Amino acid sequence: MDVKSILEAVKNGTLSPAQAEEKLKTLPYDNMGFARVDNHRKLRTGFAEVIFCQGKTPEQAAAIAADLAKNGSNVLATRTAKEHFDAIKRLLPSAVYNTAARTVSLEQSPPQKIGSVAVCTAGTADIPVAEEAAVTAEAFGCEVTRIFDVGVAGIHRLFDKIELIRQANVVVAVAGMEGALASVIGGLVERPVIAVPTSIGYGSSFGGLSALLTMLNSCSAGIGVVNIDNGFGAGYLAGQINRLLFDKGGK
Amino acid sequence: MDVKSILEAVKNGTLSPAQAEEKLKTLPYDNMGFARVDNHRKLRTGFAEVIFCQGKTPEQAAAIAADLAKNGSNVLATRTAKEHFDAIKRLLPSAVYNTAARTVSLEQSPPQKIGSVAVCTAGTADIPVAEEAAVTAEAFGCEVTRIFDVGVAGIHRLFDKIELIRQANVVVAVAGMEGALASVIGGLVERPVIAVPTSIGYGSSFGGLSALLTMLNSCSAGIGVVNIDNGFGAGYLAGQINRLLFDKGGK
Amino acid sequence: MDVKSILEAVKNGTLSPAQAEEKLKTLPYDNMGFARVDNHRKLRTGFAEVIFCQGKTPEQAAAIAADLAKNGSNVLATRTAKEHFDAIKRLLPSAVYNTAARTVSLEQSPPQKIGSVAVCTAGTADIPVAEEAAVTAEAFGCEVTRIFDVGVAGIHRLFDKIELIRQANVVVAVAGMEGALASVIGGLVERPVIAVPTSIGYGSSFGGLSALLTMLNSCSAGIGVVNIDNGFGAGYLAGQINRLLFDKGGK
Amino acid sequence: MDVKSILEAVKNGTLSPAQAEEKLKTLPYDNMGFARVDNHRKLRTGFAEVIFCQGKTPEQAAAIAADLAKNGSNVLATRTAKEHFDAIKRLLPSAVYNTAARTVSLEQSPPQKIGSVAVCTAGTADIPVAEEAAVTAEAFGCEVTRIFDVGVAGIHRLFDKIELIRQANVVVAVAGMEGALASVIGGLVERPVIAVPTSIGYGSSFGGLSALLTMLNSCSAGIGVVNIDNGFGAGYLAGQINRLLFDKGGK
Amino acid sequence: MDVKSILEAVKNGTLSPAQAEEKLKTLPYDNMGFARVDNHRKLRTGFAEVIFCQGKTPEQAAAIAADLAKNGSNVLATRTAKEHFDAIKRLLPSAVYNTAARTVSLEQSPPQKIGSVAVCTAGTADIPVAEEAAVTAEAFGCEVTRIFDVGVAGIHRLFDKIELIRQANVVVAVAGMEGALASVIGGLVERPVIAVPTSIGYGSSFGGLSALLTMLNSCSAGIGVVNIDNGFGAGYLAGQINRLLFDKGGK
Amino acid sequence: MDVKSILEAVKNGTLSPAQAEEKLKTLPYDNMGFARVDNHRKLRTGFAEVIFCQGKTPEQAAAIAADLAKNGSNVLATRTAKEHFDAIKRLLPSAVYNTAARTVSLEQSPPQKIGSVAVCTAGTADIPVAEEAAVTAEAFGCEVTRIFDVGVAGIHRLFDKIELIRQANVVVAVAGMEGALASVIGGLVERPVIAVPTSIGYGSSFGGLSALLTMLNSCSAGIGVVNIDNGFGAGYLAGQINRLLFDKGGK
Amino acid sequence: MDVKSILEAVKNGTLSPAQAEEKLKTLPYDNMGFARVDNHRKLRTGFAEVIFCQGKTPEQAAAIAADLAKNGSNVLATRTAKEHFDAIKRLLPSAVYNTAARTVSLEQSPPQKIGSVAVCTAGTADIPVAEEAAVTAEAFGCEVTRIFDVGVAGIHRLFDKIELIRQANVVVAVAGMEGALASVIGGLVERPVIAVPTSIGYGSSFGGLSALLTMLNSCSAGIGVVNIDNGFGAGYLAGQINRLLFDKGGK
Amino acid sequence: MDVKSILEAVKNGTLSPAQAEEKLKTLPYDNMGFARVDNHRKLRTGFAEVIFCQGKTPEQAAAIAADLAKNGSNVLATRTAKEHFDAIKRLLPSAVYNTAARTVSLEQSPPQKIGSVAVCTAGTADIPVAEEAAVTAEAFGCEVTRIFDVGVAGIHRLFDKIELIRQANVVVAVAGMEGALASVIGGLVERPVIAVPTSIGYGSSFGGLSALLTMLNSCSAGIGVVNIDNGFGAGYLAGQINRLLFDKGGK
Repeated sequence: MDVKSILEAVKNGTLSPAQAEEKLKTLPYDNMGFARVDNHRKLRTGFAEVIFCQGKTPEQAAAIAADLAKNGSNVLATRTAKEHFDAIKRLLPSAVYNTAARTVSLEQSPPQKIGSVAVCTAGTADIPVAEEAAVTAEAFGCEVTRIFDVGVAGIHRLFDKIELIRQANVVVAVAGMEGALASVIGGLVERPVIAVPTSIGYGSSFGGLSALLTMLNSCSAGIGVVNIDNGFGAGYLAGQINRLLFDKGGK
Repeated sequence: MDVKSILEAVKNGTLSPAQAEEKLKTLPYDNMGFARVDNHRKLRTGFAEVIFCQGKTPEQAAAIAADLAKNGSNVLATRTAKEHFDAIKRLLPSAVYNTAARTVSLEQSPPQKIGSVAVCTAGTADIPVAEEAAVTAEAFGCEVTRIFDVGVAGIHRLFDKIELIRQANVVVAVAGMEGALASVIGGLVERPVIAVPTSIGYGSSFGGLSALLTMLNSCSAGIGVVNIDNGFGAGYLAGQINRLLFDKGGK
Repeated sequence: MDVKSILEAVKNGTLSPAQAEEKLKTLPYDNMGFARVDNHRKLRTGFAEVIFCQGKTPEQAAAIAADLAKNGSNVLATRTAKEHFDAIKRLLPSAVYNTAARTVSLEQSPPQKIGSVAVCTAGTADIPVAEEAAVTAEAFGCEVTRIFDVGVAGIHRLFDKIELIRQANVVVAVAGMEGALASVIGGLVERPVIAVPTSIGYGSSFGGLSALLTMLNSCSAGIGVVNIDNGFGAGYLAGQINRLLFDKGGK
Repeated sequence: MDVKSILEAVKNGTLSPAQAEEKLKTLPYDNMGFARVDNHRKLRTGFAEVIFCQGKTPEQAAAIAADLAKNGSNVLATRTAKEHFDAIKRLLPSAVYNTAARTVSLEQSPPQKIGSVAVCTAGTADIPVAEEAAVTAEAFGCEVTRIFDVGVAGIHRLFDKIELIRQANVVVAVAGMEGALASVIGGLVERPVIAVPTSIGYGSSFGGLSALLTMLNSCSAGIGVVNIDNGFGAGYLAGQINRLLFDKGGK
Repeated sequence: MDVKSILEAVKNGTLSPAQAEEKLKTLPYDNMGFARVDNHRKLRTGFAEVIFCQGKTPEQAAAIAADLAKNGSNVLATRTAKEHFDAIKRLLPSAVYNTAARTVSLEQSPPQKIGSVAVCTAGTADIPVAEEAAVTAEAFGCEVTRIFDVGVAGIHRLFDKIELIRQANVVVAVAGMEGALASVIGGLVERPVIAVPTSIGYGSSFGGLSALLTMLNSCSAGIGVVNIDNGFGAGYLAGQINRLLFDKGGK
Repeated sequence: MDVKSILEAVKNGTLSPAQAEEKLKTLPYDNMGFARVDNHRKLRTGFAEVIFCQGKTPEQAAAIAADLAKNGSNVLATRTAKEHFDAIKRLLPSAVYNTAARTVSLEQSPPQKIGSVAVCTAGTADIPVAEEAAVTAEAFGCEVTRIFDVGVAGIHRLFDKIELIRQANVVVAVAGMEGALASVIGGLVERPVIAVPTSIGYGSSFGGLSALLTMLNSCSAGIGVVNIDNGFGAGYLAGQINRLLFDKGGK
Repeated sequence: MDVKSILEAVKNGTLSPAQAEEKLKTLPYDNMGFARVDNHRKLRTGFAEVIFCQGKTPEQAAAIAADLAKNGSNVLATRTAKEHFDAIKRLLPSAVYNTAARTVSLEQSPPQKIGSVAVCTAGTADIPVAEEAAVTAEAFGCEVTRIFDVGVAGIHRLFDKIELIRQANVVVAVAGMEGALASVIGGLVERPVIAVPTSIGYGSSFGGLSALLTMLNSCSAGIGVVNIDNGFGAGYLAGQINRLLFDKGGK
Repeated sequence: MDVKSILEAVKNGTLSPAQAEEKLKTLPYDNMGFARVDNHRKLRTGFAEVIFCQGKTPEQAAAIAADLAKNGSNVLATRTAKEHFDAIKRLLPSAVYNTAARTVSLEQSPPQKIGSVAVCTAGTADIPVAEEAAVTAEAFGCEVTRIFDVGVAGIHRLFDKIELIRQANVVVAVAGMEGALASVIGGLVERPVIAVPTSIGYGSSFGGLSALLTMLNSCSAGIGVVNIDNGFGAGYLAGQINRLLFDKGGK
């Protein structure tokens, strides 16, 4: 599958130049007409493809899920409506729905254990986004500690949990409204912090813009920010950091 | 000067209706052509007029200052450039320049002591705005405690000073970048907090917008926000709260 | 409950260092899994916790309400839908719903009387936000005068009421569209003005942005601004100012 | 010059169809390469062309001014730097510079008197924009009353002048910061109000955006808004309204 | 009702100072609790109050309508839903609903004829806003010519009608999407143009922002802009210009 | 129909000046009251008028469609709801609905074949906009190749198709979220690229703003951008480029 | 240089697999440390690389220019300051500076003639951006007609030139302020229109945003938009369209 | 220094409760009046404090640098002007200035080697921000590979380097204009990617907003974004990820 072995095969005459050219072109994805399922992604980026269901019909989501599953991969679908779950379940009866996180998952083999993540929220209303992050990180083998409702309006709640947070390899800080949680955590822990602004709030929160700007402008360093409500992206990045640690022999 | 006494004078014949009508119109301000100096404001709002110098020529600023001073008022000019100070000093030689706060003041009689204010900043670069707030509050008789560089990136610096902050009647929280200081203080003190976003920062701070939105969306209640870099407004509002306390017999 | 007495107990041997460490950590909040109810807030900030229901399920709101109520606190829930009220009423049958303000309250003991607030609106459509401010201020013991529909398009309506407004300790000015009411009141009264922009308007009001910017840029000083439609925040801040007055012996 | 007379000339044989076609195309402007000076505009829109100098070189501005002047027109140039004036003066020695309004004018014949305009400002710093409006209106024959520094922070200053304002046919209200002046005037007078937001302010005034939105969202009806700092546009529109009155026999 | 006659009465003893003070305060509006109906507005601004129904309950709208009607005024309500009409009709059975303009009107006496207005739209979808403008202008006595779907994508349609447009005293140009219609008309007519941006469009029209900015930045002078979708404001301002003409003896 | 022949007719006496003037005015569009159907557009801009149905009632859409069809034109309606299709079908029973593209078309004569277009999407959710572009281009005679789901997150999918893309005369790149597809294609092909941002995304995609800005700021040159979700505009512009090629004898 | 010939060489033994792998990697650009000059781009996209000088030091610009020139390419540098020109001239003495367009060019061989472009501006101040477009298009072999100052405020100036504009293969419409020129031209010609918003304007033009939105929301179809002030991008895209025509045998 | 040992000392009588209370408060920072230098940060977050010089006077920067240096720490100052360097050098003669990165550093002991980082830029103009990232990461012990000018307009330049990029533990992708580089790299590597938008660009790049939104909305997962131009933040976060790896025994 790599360039060198194809070229060797050409040299050995096992492969004609035309065949080789074809092989170089035919990359390992399944073309489903409306989508090109990337079975190759796991090799390329360390994780299998996750199905982002917003904007996809239930039928499209289910077809992609089945395509991924037939290769034995675990399947994770995010931003699923109930209709997506129903369609997936028809094709993959063992699929499981997580209402809070709005994810559908199918675990065909347990993921490799790769490290720990603390997922914190400022408030109760941020929990769905945090759950999406947690479920995603778990799907990639992270052990997740959930620490919810520790926002800065009552900062003693955060301090009570700070040692627990410090034990994680990576911290995901999920907050809407003014989003100050990420800054405060960033000043208190020595590990990478992934900040997730949420659209929780009203008025001049402008759909999460307020929390997003807060996190980007944090006076604490060591914070990487993802899109508003992007729990999946935070969980995935946390997984990637833990994967790095795992691959390099850390524990 | 009030409607009732004018009307009584009309009844008594001391004032003709025409004179009364004139008096009702002639409100106590000095018309300087380019400006109408409001000598009446002290009676109406509890504080004398403060000269906002941005957009005024040095000559205009100095003329207004002299006009206010001739009635014995203390004078405070904000957003002054060196040129404003020079022009004012020519007319009012005792005027004093505060470089950090960019204010010019002339104290003809000490202001009445009306209460205490804590002025806090997140960082060093926020100090000029904080100084404008402090100088303004002092001009109106507040006792000001300055507590600088206690931003949330190193939150232990704030906690070390929190008792001091709690002793004030009113807290002014000045912060740029992500502006989280106001939220954290708001969750820790039981007194009114006036939040001043500053334009300190770069990139997506968008000239103070980030800190402004943070403060408006604070998950801590009890916070009133003023315009970006508006140290004067914060000091004035703090003064007004203390003035209320003073007028109502609090101590 | 304070650090000093814990440390004394350690010295006296009444408390082991480990126990003391534990106590210092265990701050007085109830962990409900999805939320950490802050029973301690009343001591820390002068007011009990208020339940912000937007983004909470009816069950979550009701559970928090019951938790607060079991300690004898008065309960105030804001941004409630009918469903929140129904769920709260099942657990707390004496809870009362205020349709205009969209609040649910349970008064177990009358709040201490702490001072007066004038709540003004520019128009009729601003009344729900104003009611939220009024109900909140009343919950904290303020005496509230409601003065509605006195916007600047017919400024004589405001002038007719200005003496009434001047009698209050604190003025809350609620306005949408161009939000000029706060500036005009700010120029006419000597008391702190809390400005609440509302999302009333259309087109370039951009969901309240127009009124918000107006209030932040007011040429009248002494105005603190809260988030768009944040009646609660204004009522709370008004309460905090009156509480300051009360605590310091003002009347 | 009108279509009908050209067609008559064609019928009469005075003009060949080719000549007629040419005439229909050759509209009365002077092509100067970099600009097409519109000598026809006065016929078409009631006013001669005004030279907007921002973005033009002094030489371009002067060439256009001379081209207009050679037809005997009065000349008005706006947004002029000193360099523009110098260049124009070299070609038109009688041209006059108005420093405050940043205009250059050459009056070859007095404009027809067409009506009255009141130009009001909220503050001192708004005067340059107001002057541009006033000079423009005067150039088109309006009689202008200047009423400066009557902003809403001290609303008695406005009320003192309201009768004077009411006597004008059209009112131009110039204000920066929160721009509430237009709303208040709009509620008090029965004449068309032209609102000019200015870029005076700082922080969240966002270069005049705050005042612009205020004026567009005014709760007073009868207000037409022009661009930020567009004193010229306001003076021109005021002139157009007065011109209508004049043309229709009003007085 | 004016200050002078009240003062004369005081002098004559017909009125005590206390009574006079009361009279000066009691301005002629009806306080309905939720609204202060401004019966005085017609004297003050030349037009009776119009009921803006968005954000008002049907009952509130109907009560205000009835209050205005009982004085014999014509009634105009804008931004009405069907529910508002139903409620108004119950109290005022002769009220008429205009579906396109979303207005309710009750004409008790024909309005004075005051002049002409041309209302133009760029497209078909802009018609509802244009109708609101037209109905409003008609309510104030203007004769309205409707010229719809003459946008610049097919500019010959506009040119075909330009003479008709030029005959009006005032032109209202209603356009969404890029809003260029106002600029083109502004360059072709010598009368005041009132530009109304509409929210018609999608994507980067951002709810009418695109058309609004176009109109504010028009390279044609003589254009006053109102809020997005504000047909009422445009009709009202057109009425005010015509009223000026009428009052001053123009025809 | 052109000016010259009309003028000749005047000269010959076949046409009176009055008739000629009338003819010059009466441009070839049908005035339907609410719309002016532009039958002349095909001559003027190379393509017949397309009916943009958003904001039009089904009846209006159908009436315009019928008006265009009666001249034998092919008909294309975009942004149609099911209701528009139903209304059109009643008048034009052969009309066909394309669900994905949300277009209705009636082909009375096959369009002239004018060239090729490649329509590419980054993701599955971008397909509806891409279909609108494809259907539009096909309606004008382009041969369209659809290449979907080749976004940059798995760039090998794009490279696999790049030769196919290079064979087209014009490339339409449709992408939401971060919209990087256009830049990458722009750097790889030598043909004009038309970039269509879509509103696919969430949070800080701000309804397509993110993709729009990406495309406008592309570091690859040779990219023209259309409005967010404007598949029609892209297909039309692609058609215009191919039409140019066709008219000038290219193949 | 292409994959197939490299593979053939491997088969023939002329190239070892390792050499082939190396060749596949070593793409034809010169690595200058700070920049990778893309000598290959002409083959890949039809045009040689153009040097965008903003943000580059004069030395960097000159080094890249020399690197391109040594291969015999014509050189075009845009957004050059005088310092860039001086540095380039030292290395390439025949380089020529175009002050208006702010470009530096070196023509070593005349470009192939590929077609015609009309470059139009709304105003005089838009000329520099238009010149950049014109110079770029000329550098790629287009014949350019310049038609300046034909904005819609005096639309007869545009109509006078419309036949000239219609003769071009591609039209570039350059406009600031409200940017309506592109819409009007788009409705009048049957050729692709490339719209260039400029930052000319003030106040709510917001640095060209107004013109940009206008062009994106144009009600005329067939318009592709480039970035604000991006004359180069427009000229390049015009060149690409003409190149397509040329390559396909059009004339 | 930790709570437990203080408490043990209290138990043992080595420390009185009062002393202990004092110790708990006295956190290890130096109060310099204008700043509180956080010598404790290295213990708390794994890295010593870095001096952000923007908004600080040269004297303040130098005083903080000296304070940090006296404890033997390495010193890094970012966003330094030449004046900052001069002031620091006077106190710390071994300090070194990096012109491209605008950093000042003093290395008193070589940092511990903790892992590798690849710093990539899209263009030449992004290099200063990239250098700030590289210098910061190096200061914390990372081995940095610089890969500049590999933007997506000539994507073969990136592919040529992709294996090199894949060897790093962490990738920093620095890009202005449309910022697509991060998405493309994110789709090609399996390691955490830190995206840094830069303010390089013009027009609708809006000071880096375009690149920022692109990166936040990336369709590739595993990307954490920092503020516009925040090279320091990216280098710091990269360092924190490598530090995690190092601490956990990875290699």
